[in-house]
Amino acid sequence: MTGVAQAFVPGHITGFFTTHRDADPTKTGSQGGGVCLSDGVTVTVEPAAEPQVLLNDEPLDIGAVTRVLDTLQVNATVRGETPLPLGSGFGVSGAMALGTAFAANAAFDRQLSANELTTIAHGAEVQAGTGLGDVVAQARGGVPIRLEPGGPQHNYLDGIPATARIEYHVLGGLSTDDVLGGDTTDITAAGKQALSQVVKEPTLPSFMQASRSFSRESGLLTDEVQSVISDVAQADGDAAMAMLGETIFALGTGLSDAGYDPRVCEVHHPGAMMTQP
Amino acid sequence: MTGVAQAFVPGHITGFFTTHRDADPTKTGSQGGGVCLSDGVTVTVEPAAEPQVLLNDEPLDIGAVTRVLDTLQVNATVRGETPLPLGSGFGVSGAMALGTAFAANAAFDRQLSANELTTIAHGAEVQAGTGLGDVVAQARGGVPIRLEPGGPQHNYLDGIPATARIEYHVLGGLSTDDVLGGDTTDITAAGKQALSQVVKEPTLPSFMQASRSFSRESGLLTDEVQSVISDVAQADGDAAMAMLGETIFALGTGLSDAGYDPRVCEVHHPGAMMTQP
Repeated sequence: MTGVAQAFVPGHITGFFTTHRDADPTKTGSQGGGVCLSDGVTVTVEPAAEPQVLLNDEPLDIGAVTRVLDTLQVNATVRGETPLPLGSGFGVSGAMALGTAFAANAAFDRQLSANELTTIAHGAEVQAGTGLGDVVAQARGGVPIRLEPGGPQHNYLDGIPATARIEYHVLGGLSTDDVLGGDTTDITAAGKQALSQVVKEPTLPSFMQASRSFSRESGLLTDEVQSVISDVAQADGDAAMAMLGETIFALGTGLSDAGYDPRVCEVHHPGAMMTQP
Repeated sequence: MTGVAQAFVPGHITGFFTTHRDADPTKTGSQGGGVCLSDGVTVTVEPAAEPQVLLNDEPLDIGAVTRVLDTLQVNATVRGETPLPLGSGFGVSGAMALGTAFAANAAFDRQLSANELTTIAHGAEVQAGTGLGDVVAQARGGVPIRLEPGGPQHNYLDGIPATARIEYHVLGGLSTDDVLGGDTTDITAAGKQALSQVVKEPTLPSFMQASRSFSRESGLLTDEVQSVISDVAQADGDAAMAMLGETIFALGTGLSDAGYDPRVCEVHHPGAMMTQP
């Protein structure tokens, strides 16, 4: 049977990360920690004569999605619907890649497992240069800790057993490719330190604190983002920078309390899943 | 901070399984396949002078729960609320153990990770003799395939990327301890065959078919359960036996179409998660 199929993939905010390169894209990836969001991407796949990718009804070239379609050897129209901005640290490209893999698998009856589909989407995202760890985090859901890098055959994931309301505020975008394509020595050193702190104390406050330290020590923190984080702290809130974007996320009502008009969502526990079209 | 905390853990129907014993309870477990259900157990933990366990307001001795409280070194009242019957193949004891671990961790600020809490609950369930694979499946959610046995440090999980309405009908209970305490050679042989079929074709119809074969070849199928499965098949439906209980589950409207009055739920994707009390 082939037909229309739909998947939902949560947005994913990375708080801190390391980078690991390998000749094998399924071994390439990152360690780190992040939060999956109930704001995500609903991806619908429908067989078509020519591949086409739309995000919120706009035609868009997303390298990771094209690679997933090629790997599954399907021609399809891929429609993504999301409230999240692209390129601002929400893992939208990863969500599109993973959602395409899940939905195309069902639409074309490819009979692959969840891990196989995650491996395909992770490899596609790595090869497209748009991310290293979002896909495997988005496949897990919740508050994932990536203890070992790579796809499901190679990585090792854990999680912070917690839930929360999450607020976020977007100032602008950062190019993942520019950052990950440069020297990442400082990033990886700061990421390892943050990871070790969160492994010792896997709670949300500890995750936020480790994310703030990471953003400073990695050199990725911008003055504009720092200013918002300080505003939230002055209102007794807990905020950090979303990697990689000029985006601030906060627990509870942190951004609202500081006078911002944030978008509100919550931790999304399921991870990528099939939904009814 | 200590206080009241609450977790939700999905019910889990096992379709087929193998058994693996080891001196280390975290290496003991089972391979197999199952379905997590939106019908589950909401577990509330509150500090108390003396430990007490209640299921749907009835005091109950659940060995796995007591062991979890002991391991976390806490005295608490544990309240479970569920529409699921105990001892009929829904993993209620596993859900109670895992929900207790998650909620007690938060209530007593134990600062353990999701995998650590799953390891504690899995070990407690194994030592209590009430299950081998429910806890790790319930921690994952969705339609878990347990490719390797044991707790999170040792196992390897995959999943069927699908969702469905699930109906179930309970005829009666089976003692997990009696079955698992006896000779499980035939069970493990049948379980390995079913697993290999589902690995080759990780879809829901293939999972149901493998579960039916397993129930026959393991010798666990009863005449009463077989009769209901046949009724569903005659109505063009897809049903199988829930391990270990005299319980039938079906995809979609299988049991309704055959004239039964089943309880209705759906695949639950998140797995164990913290909720607001």
